[in-house]
Order: sequence, then structure tokens, then C-alpha cells
Amino acid sequence: MRFKKHLLTAVIGLTLSFSTNASELETLINMLHENGMVTDEQYGRLMEELAENKASNEQQKAELDEKLAEATKPSAVEISTNGGLTLETRDGQFSTKIGGRLQVDAAAYGGSPDMGDGTDIRRARLYLAGTLYRDWGYKLEYEFDNSSITDAFISYDGFKNYQIMAGHFKDPFSLDYMISASNTMFMERALPTAFNAGRHVGVMGARNSKHWTLAAALMGDTASSTREADEDEGWGWSTRGTLAPINESGKLLHLGLGFNYRDLQPSNTVRFSQAPETNVSGVRIVDTDMLDNADTMLKSGLELATVVGPFTAQAEYIRTSVKRDNISDADFDGWYLQSSYSLTGESRPYKDGVFGGIKPNRQVGDGGIGAWEMAIRYSSLDLNDGAIEGGEADSMTLGLNWYPISMLRFSANYVHVLDVDGGTYDGQEADVFQVRSQWAF
Amino acid sequence: MRFKKHLLTAVIGLTLSFSTNASELETLINMLHENGMVTDEQYGRLMEELAENKASNEQQKAELDEKLAEATKPSAVEISTNGGLTLETRDGQFSTKIGGRLQVDAAAYGGSPDMGDGTDIRRARLYLAGTLYRDWGYKLEYEFDNSSITDAFISYDGFKNYQIMAGHFKDPFSLDYMISASNTMFMERALPTAFNAGRHVGVMGARNSKHWTLAAALMGDTASSTREADEDEGWGWSTRGTLAPINESGKLLHLGLGFNYRDLQPSNTVRFSQAPETNVSGVRIVDTDMLDNADTMLKSGLELATVVGPFTAQAEYIRTSVKRDNISDADFDGWYLQSSYSLTGESRPYKDGVFGGIKPNRQVGDGGIGAWEMAIRYSSLDLNDGAIEGGEADSMTLGLNWYPISMLRFSANYVHVLDVDGGTYDGQEADVFQVRSQWAF
Amino acid sequence: MRFKKHLLTAVIGLTLSFSTNASELETLINMLHENGMVTDEQYGRLMEELAENKASNEQQKAELDEKLAEATKPSAVEISTNGGLTLETRDGQFSTKIGGRLQVDAAAYGGSPDMGDGTDIRRARLYLAGTLYRDWGYKLEYEFDNSSITDAFISYDGFKNYQIMAGHFKDPFSLDYMISASNTMFMERALPTAFNAGRHVGVMGARNSKHWTLAAALMGDTASSTREADEDEGWGWSTRGTLAPINESGKLLHLGLGFNYRDLQPSNTVRFSQAPETNVSGVRIVDTDMLDNADTMLKSGLELATVVGPFTAQAEYIRTSVKRDNISDADFDGWYLQSSYSLTGESRPYKDGVFGGIKPNRQVGDGGIGAWEMAIRYSSLDLNDGAIEGGEADSMTLGLNWYPISMLRFSANYVHVLDVDGGTYDGQEADVFQVRSQWAF
Repeated sequence: MRFKKHLLTAVIGLTLSFSTNASELETLINMLHENGMVTDEQYGRLMEELAENKASNEQQKAELDEKLAEATKPSAVEISTNGGLTLETRDGQFSTKIGGRLQVDAAAYGGSPDMGDGTDIRRARLYLAGTLYRDWGYKLEYEFDNSSITDAFISYDGFKNYQIMAGHFKDPFSLDYMISASNTMFMERALPTAFNAGRHVGVMGARNSKHWTLAAALMGDTASSTREADEDEGWGWSTRGTLAPINESGKLLHLGLGFNYRDLQPSNTVRFSQAPETNVSGVRIVDTDMLDNADTMLKSGLELATVVGPFTAQAEYIRTSVKRDNISDADFDGWYLQSSYSLTGESRPYKDGVFGGIKPNRQVGDGGIGAWEMAIRYSSLDLNDGAIEGGEADSMTLGLNWYPISMLRFSANYVHVLDVDGGTYDGQEADVFQVRSQWAF
Repeated sequence: MRFKKHLLTAVIGLTLSFSTNASELETLINMLHENGMVTDEQYGRLMEELAENKASNEQQKAELDEKLAEATKPSAVEISTNGGLTLETRDGQFSTKIGGRLQVDAAAYGGSPDMGDGTDIRRARLYLAGTLYRDWGYKLEYEFDNSSITDAFISYDGFKNYQIMAGHFKDPFSLDYMISASNTMFMERALPTAFNAGRHVGVMGARNSKHWTLAAALMGDTASSTREADEDEGWGWSTRGTLAPINESGKLLHLGLGFNYRDLQPSNTVRFSQAPETNVSGVRIVDTDMLDNADTMLKSGLELATVVGPFTAQAEYIRTSVKRDNISDADFDGWYLQSSYSLTGESRPYKDGVFGGIKPNRQVGDGGIGAWEMAIRYSSLDLNDGAIEGGEADSMTLGLNWYPISMLRFSANYVHVLDVDGGTYDGQEADVFQVRSQWAF
Repeated sequence: MRFKKHLLTAVIGLTLSFSTNASELETLINMLHENGMVTDEQYGRLMEELAENKASNEQQKAELDEKLAEATKPSAVEISTNGGLTLETRDGQFSTKIGGRLQVDAAAYGGSPDMGDGTDIRRARLYLAGTLYRDWGYKLEYEFDNSSITDAFISYDGFKNYQIMAGHFKDPFSLDYMISASNTMFMERALPTAFNAGRHVGVMGARNSKHWTLAAALMGDTASSTREADEDEGWGWSTRGTLAPINESGKLLHLGLGFNYRDLQPSNTVRFSQAPETNVSGVRIVDTDMLDNADTMLKSGLELATVVGPFTAQAEYIRTSVKRDNISDADFDGWYLQSSYSLTGESRPYKDGVFGGIKPNRQVGDGGIGAWEMAIRYSSLDLNDGAIEGGEADSMTLGLNWYPISMLRFSANYVHVLDVDGGTYDGQEADVFQVRSQWAF
């Protein structure tokens, strides 16, 4: 009965699947043949059938494997959404992102001067951006509220940590301005953003790493600039370096230094003015009016920021010097110190020398109350210099931000202008109460 | 021993599978052992091999199950198109929709006054809309033809049947205006749409259910409004309630009531005018001209609509009262009655107090001729009141709509102005013949 | 023989899989029964179990097949990207494409007249286009740089090789203008593009096949035209036929003929002018100024082009005749001959009577250097006719194009105006050096 044991073993071994145990069967048949329990003729037929069935089984197994491989292979393209649409090829060669933002404001004003209460679509943007063959990037973003192109560029990202860009984008200058308007601590940037460098058509080289960044750009004029056909357009250069000796999750020390130069041809004029950190009414509480005979201007900025867990502090000083023909140069400056505290514990993210937006630890609808953040700021802007009496303004701002989910933000800001010294609104103190609803992704 | 060969053949043929019948084999081996046909030593080896093979088979089966589970699990994101693009996460948390519409018109005019024949892009819009974490919604739509933001809002939909919105959207008022311009019965809305409330920046709460809806909004000014920096912008409120005691597929009785109030600061002017249900020529056959000293205005509207199978009837009466300083108030009103009949049997869909668009039962290319709809309308608008002689106009409109597929619509309209009574075009009768090509999704 | 039954049962239980060998087992059992090795009772039980197991195995097999079929079936929608986003339903019924282009220029000028150096966003467009139920097409494209609608139409493609369009699109006239601005040989089209027919609202029928195309359009005015409400807008017709007796990959002979007629109401004016193939400065070196009393104009154009491997040559002559009231007619004309040679061997693609863009054989990042193309052009434009002294200009242009990957293009152009004869800039010779960065898909 020995053959039976072998038979059983064979049967057991066979029991399924993929690994055909034909070898054991073969052993068994050979054994039976040796034992004389199958004739030579029978043995021949058995071996033939065995070979046939083996081949058939192997083919079936191959087909199943193939089907399973096809069925479980990842798709070439991955698509996802966190608002808008993101598409990525799994080989990392291509990506496409469609996104946008909407900011809707309402404001009521008190004190003096008279400022008109009202509502406003502050920003309404859509963009298409992406990656081409891994190393190249592109973006086109449009601001529908004032019908203007914001970011529009092509970039080369093939050198690790380095980026080369050509197109229309922000001059690298001033931390406050580099931070996306969706992620600023308050609804509006601080008073010294009167000196922000804006966007121009140009080229930029940048290096971004964990502990330092450096960017330098050569820029022509804005996309929307107009001029006489025979006049050269304005141009400038801009550079910004940042240092982050401490840069861990929830721990940051940031230092920054920037310079921005601009040739003011062909108009040879420049004007600085500022609203009290509000945009619904158009009142500018300080304003140099048009300064003529202006040749060039140089802006210099110093940045300091820190994050300690839920606490963020950020400060900047910016000085602007305007060289004028046959008139003494004009110098203006401003600074702010702002700080926020997240009641729900979130830390402000930081990357490549710029702050990102707060992401709630526990979202509404997920058992949480979203992220709640309180903020306070002191801003100062001095547009007086010699005969130029643009006015000097100081303001104090309180802010409350609620991020129910990471794509949404509701803000309430109260701004008190402490004093205007000089200019049209000399001695006046404005009060601003404003709220914003925002989606951004 | 012939049977053995067969047995072997069978065993070989068996070679793979899922459900290991090891329990039966075990029973067999135990039996053989009991019968004394296998020795204790053999039995031990058999049990060992059995266990090994059982484990190996189970593992193989588990691997296969896992692969199959992975292969057949639904993707996290579903993407589809019926024009544009729709993306939905299968968990219902997120969705994104990109869509738009295009309306291209051509018109020829007869009778008097002189109106310029021509062509026009009537509407050319794109939008990005979606859902964020199930409960939140957003939209941004732009009208490229006149470079203006139409819908731009954020909404909270977490309370069943309720919706809260903030942003820029239509004041809830007037059935004719609430119906999307892609879905109106005729190419242009009826004459009384001179009183439509438009879009403003504000907040709205709405309740929508099968048999009634109620919406109330507090609105500032339009997104594109301009004003002096020290002037408060205009504001208003709007409310609309609808009742649908009968609301089944192909059977509807709709009643609606709406009020719209507006403070006309800061311009303190208002103007009503209307073209003869055509937009290619800019002639306005009735026109109050600018009414000054206007403080506030209140619009009231009454709606009635019914659907019986392929037949739809819709009527509205709107009255507008303008309160003026030191001048007697001005009152204007208008009404229309319009009816359509689908020759191919489609019923006009209705949801949340508003009509949707006709969807053909059998599309062109699918063995059908699309949907064909005939429509007739009588409109009246009276802009005369006391000293204000804006004119009163009555018009009759015939329409033919062809929807070859559900995203396309081709329309031909003939408008005959029966009479203008008063105003610049007193006594004149205009004839309008116009056609439209439309895609919308 | 009891054990045999168990063995058989086990064997039967194993049966599964794909190829159930139940028939062989049945044969065996029958044989054993015949041989008297199993009793009738045993035989009955065996057959019963056999049937049960057979059913169970077949069910398992069916389930597996079903799962595999589900797992391996192609998704209904395919999504891909080569920049932007393409979505296609696998049944060919629907497709959606989101794409765009960006062109950023910088230019420096020498010689005379004075032209202002500077930078410019030349084009910044996004579009949504697609297919609806296989036979219908749509597109909406917007030019963000000058806030204008470019392509906006609906098309019917249900007749093989034929296309019917309604909406806003280019009049079919002039090879140079029909080629997408992303694919032109030089940064700007040749001087005679002063006579291009532009885009209008209208309808067009076209036939496209390998060896010939014919298009005819009836057009109203441009989407952005303005006029008095009582004036009819301008209209025109346009037709273009092309012949390609040789049209293979890398081998082409193209001949084209076009006519474009336009009624110049309501303004009854027309103006032709041209910059020296540059767009950064606005200087127009030839300019007829506004010609009044202009009733109609007829443009006629002759096209010739050839491709031989990496070599392309393209030439056009266009004549424009303006019929004027009570004044003798005005006739202007222009021509160009341009040629390019791809250093990396690529041939310029051609389809439906129009050239496409160069696609590099070996891309940067893929072991290649992209495509490099040199080009040379001679252009001539004569805007002098009798008393009208708009000036005649001839220019020579050298170009270098680099396509590192198929979606990107960097161009450098040098234009030398050989002479201006007549007009404001009589006798002047301008030099243009300009560069462009472009992404397009």
C-alpha cells in the first residue's frame, strides 16, 4: 500500500493553485510503475497526460498571474482634490493643478476721516499650474476682480534646490509680501507694504534649502504697464536672502535681508500711499502724491520672525530712498511687529523663507472646532520727508482667524489708527472693523 | 489498475483551486490509519505534509484574495464628463466641477425704431465649483463677454435642506431671473426683467424642500460697483418664498412671492429701461432715464407656474416703488405670461423653486431627433408714472427651441412689439427675428 | 474500499479551479462502479458529492472570473496630461481638454525710429474644449493679456471630413494667420499679416482631407465690436482652399488660395499699419492712418509652401483692395518668403492645410538636446497707393528656436528693416533683437 501514501501526498500537495505539484505526481507514477502496479503502456499514457495537464495548468496559472498583474498595476495618472483638482502621473514626469481663491470682505468704519462702509470681492483668482517632464514648471493665474495677470511663468527645476524662472511674478523682497495673501496673519498686510515691490516681467534665479534661501531677479515692468511706443520701459533688480538657523516643526528663527532697485523711467514719477489696512473703502490716510523728477529708487528691508509652537512673531523694517533730479532725495520708512497665537495649538508652517497657512489639527466635521488664531500688530509708516508731507501713520490691529477646514478661513479684524502726523488727514484717528470669508487651494 | 490511471489523471487535472478540502483529506488519512493501511510512521509523515500544504495553500489563497480585493476596490476618486469635468471622491467628501456656457446670437430687425442687425456673443462663462469636506461648497464663475464676476461664493450645506451662503450671487427675487439664462424658455427673459434684482455681495440663508422654499438675503453692492472712498455703498435685502403643493415628475403647481428692498445710496439715482427681448442691438424701447433724488426702492413680485406633461405655463407680476426726496414716489410694474409645449414629450424639470432645462428623451445620434419645444409669451412693462414718461411696452414672442443633445440648444425667436405707449419710441412697433447657438454644462 | 470513497471525495473537492476535470472523475467513478470496487450505495453518494462539488467549483470559478473581469475592465474615463489636462471617455463619446499658452517677450531696439526697449506678456490664454456625444465639439478660449475672447464656438463633426461651426473664430484666410501663434516660425508673423482677416462671429463650413481643404465662412463682426444701437454691424465672407498634391511625413507641397470680403459699415473706415515684426514697443513703421469713405474691402491671397525633411519654406502674397465712396479705390499688397532648417532633423508637421509645431525627436532630459531650428525671412509690405502714403517696408529676419521639450519653446529673433519708403518713418532702418519664452499645450 505504499503507493497509496504517495498518492495521498501527491493529492495533498496538489491541493490548489498555482504551484503545481506535478513533480510529486511524477515521482508517484514512477514508483507505481516500478512496483509493477501500472503497465508500461499505462505508464506511457499517464506520463503523456501528466505532461499535457502540466502544460495546461501552467498556462492557466500564467493567464491568472497576468490578469492579476494587470488588475493590480497602479494607474499611470493619479487624480485627487482638496478643492480644485490635482493630477499627477505616477512616474513623476507630469502634474497639473487647477486651483483658485476667493476673498469676500465687509467693512464698517468709525472715527475720522469719513470712510465708506461696504462690501468687496477682495480677490477672485483661478490658476493652471503644473510640471512638464519632471524638470519644467509653468503657471498662469488670473485675478478676476481687477482683470489682471498675477503669476505667469515658466520655470526650470532640474537642478536640485535651485529654480530658474522667466515670466511675470513677485520681485523677491519683503517677507510680508512674499507670504501669499491667503496666508497672511491679518486680512491686509501691514502699513509698510506701501513699499512692496510688486510683480514684474523678468527672470529670477533662486536657491532654497532648509536653513537658507537666496533669490536674485532682473525685472522689466509690470504686465499691465503702459508707455509711449518710443520710451524704454522701467526696469529693476531685486534680491532677498533669508537665514533660518532654527527650522524644525514648531520651532523657527528667521532672519531676512532684501534690496530692491528700480529705474523709474519713463514716467520718472513715483507715489507712495496707504490705506489703514483695509481695502473696502479707498481712503488712503497717508499719501505722498505723485513725486516727479524721480530717477531711481532703492528699497532695503530687514526681516525677523520666530515660531515657538502655537506662537508666531514677525517683524520687518523697510526703507525706501528715491533719487530725484535737481531735488534732494526723498527717504521714507516703515516697520511693523505682529504676533499670533493659535488657541487650538497649530504651528505656522514655514518653507523656503516664507510662512504658509495654518492647517487645523482637528477640522470641523471631524470632531474638532477647526483652528482658532488670535493676532495683534503694531504698524508704522512714515511718508514725511522734508518738503514732502505724505503723513506718518501708526496703527494697532487685532485679528481673529477661524479655519474650520484647511481650505477655508473666516477673519475678523479691528484696526485703530493711533495717529496720523502730517498730510491731508493730519491728527485723525480711524477705526476699522472688517470681516472676510475666504476659500483658497 | 486502470482506475488508478484515471485517478491520477483527475488529480493532475485538479491541480489548482481555492477551497482546500484538507478536512476531507484528513478524514481519509485518519480512516486509512485506522484501517491499518498506513503505518504509524507513514501516518505521522502524512499529517505533517498535510499541515504544511494546508498552511501553504491558505497563504496562497489569502494572497490571491488580497490581490483581488485590491484589484476590485473602487478608486478613491471618480471622474466623469458631460461636457467640462466632474470629479468626486467616492466617500462623498470632495467634489470639483469645471463647466461653462457659450451663447452666440444673430439678430435681424424690422419695423421701427431702427435697430442695428448683427451678431453677438451673449454669454461666455467658465466656472470652478465644488464641495469641501462634504459640508462646504464654493464657486467662482466669470463672464468673459463683459469681464465680470458672476457667482463667487462659499456655502455651508451641513444642515439638511438648509444652505448658508456668503459672497456674490443673485438676490433671491423673481422666478424668471432665478432660472439660469441657459434654461429660460426664450432667448431673453420677459420685459419685466427690467426689475430683476441682480447680483450683490452679501449673505443668504435658504431652505429648500420638495414642497416649499424660503430664502432671505442681506446684500451690499455689486462686485463691480464704484463710489467715492468716503461714501457708504448701497445695500438691500431680498426674500423669496415658493410653494409647490403639487410637485411630481411632469406635474407641478408653483406659487411664489418675493420682496426686494434697496437703499440707493450713494448715487441716489435709479434707472429702468428695457430692450424688446433682444440683446444684439442696444436699443431700449422704454427707458425712465436717470431718476434722481431716489432714496430707496421696494420691488414685490408674484409668481405662478404649472407643468402638465410636455406643457409648461409661467406667469409673473412685479411692481417697483421708488421713494424719492421732495418728489412724489414713482411706481412701475410689469407682467408676463409664457407657455411652452414640447413636441417630443419632455417635461420641464423643477427643483428648489426654479425650473431647470429640457433634457431630450431621445438624443440625436441615439436614434432620436432631440427635443423640440414651441413657446409663446405675452409681456408687458409700464415705465410711465405721472411726470415720468418712460413708456409702456407690450410684446408678443414666439419661440422654437431644439435640444439635439442635453448640452446643446439652438433657438429661434420672433418678437413683435405690439405698441409702445409714451417715451421716446411712442407708437412704434419693432419686429425682432433672432437665433442662438448654445452649449452649457 | 471505504477509504477510496473518501479519497475520491477529497479529489472531487479539490477539483476546482479553472478547468474542472469532473468529467474524468465521473469516468473513474463509473469505472470503479463497473469494476465492483464501489457498492451501488457508495456510488450514489459519490455521484451526489461529485455533483455538489462540481456545482460549488463552478460557482467559485464564476466568481473568480467575474472579479477578474471587473478588475481588468478598462475604466470608462481616461485622463492624461501633456501639460493641462485631457479627459476622454473610452467609448469615444466625450472628451474634455483644458490647456493654454504663455508667451513672455523681451526686446531691445536699435537704429531708427526710436522704439522703447522692454518686456511684455505677449499671449496668456486658457481654454476649455471638448467633444459631446462624439459628433459635437465646443471651445472657449480667453486671452488674459488683453481681456478678449479668442475661440468660442460650437461645431458639428458628425459628417466624415466635414465640419460645421458657429461662434467666434478666425476667418479662413492666409496660411500665416491660420497657423497657431504658438507654432509660427518666428516670434511674430510676417509684415503682410497687417492684412490678416481676424476673428468674427459667424458660421463656417469646412472640408478637410489629406490632399485638399476648402473652407467658407459667413461672418458678422468681432466679439468686441461696438457701434450705435441703430446701426447694422459689419459683415463679410471668407473662403480658403488648399491643395497638397504631396503630403507625406517629411514631404510636402502646399498651394493655397483665399479671398476675404468685408462690408465696412457702420464706421466706413479702415486702417492698415504694421510694426517691424515686434510687439514690445508699439511703434508702427508703416500706417495708412484712418481711411474714411471706405465701403468694402476684398483681400486675395496666394500661398505656397514645401517641406523636405528638416527644411521648410513658406511664401504668401496678399493684396487688399478698398472700395471708397467718391474717391478712387485704394490697393495695398505685401508678400514674404520664409524658410527654416531643423538642425536636429525634425520635420514641420502639416495637417488640414496648416502647419503644426516642431516636436523634438529627442527631448532634454531624455538624452537629447531638444529641437534646434534656424529660420530666415524676407517680408515686404506696401501701404502706399496714390495719395495715401502709408509707407512701404521691407525687412529681413533671422530666427533661432529651441524646443527643449515639445511643450516649451525659446526663441531669439533679429529683425532688420531694410528700408521704409514713404510715410512717417520714410528712410529709416530699425533693428530689433527680441527673445521669447513660451509654454503651450
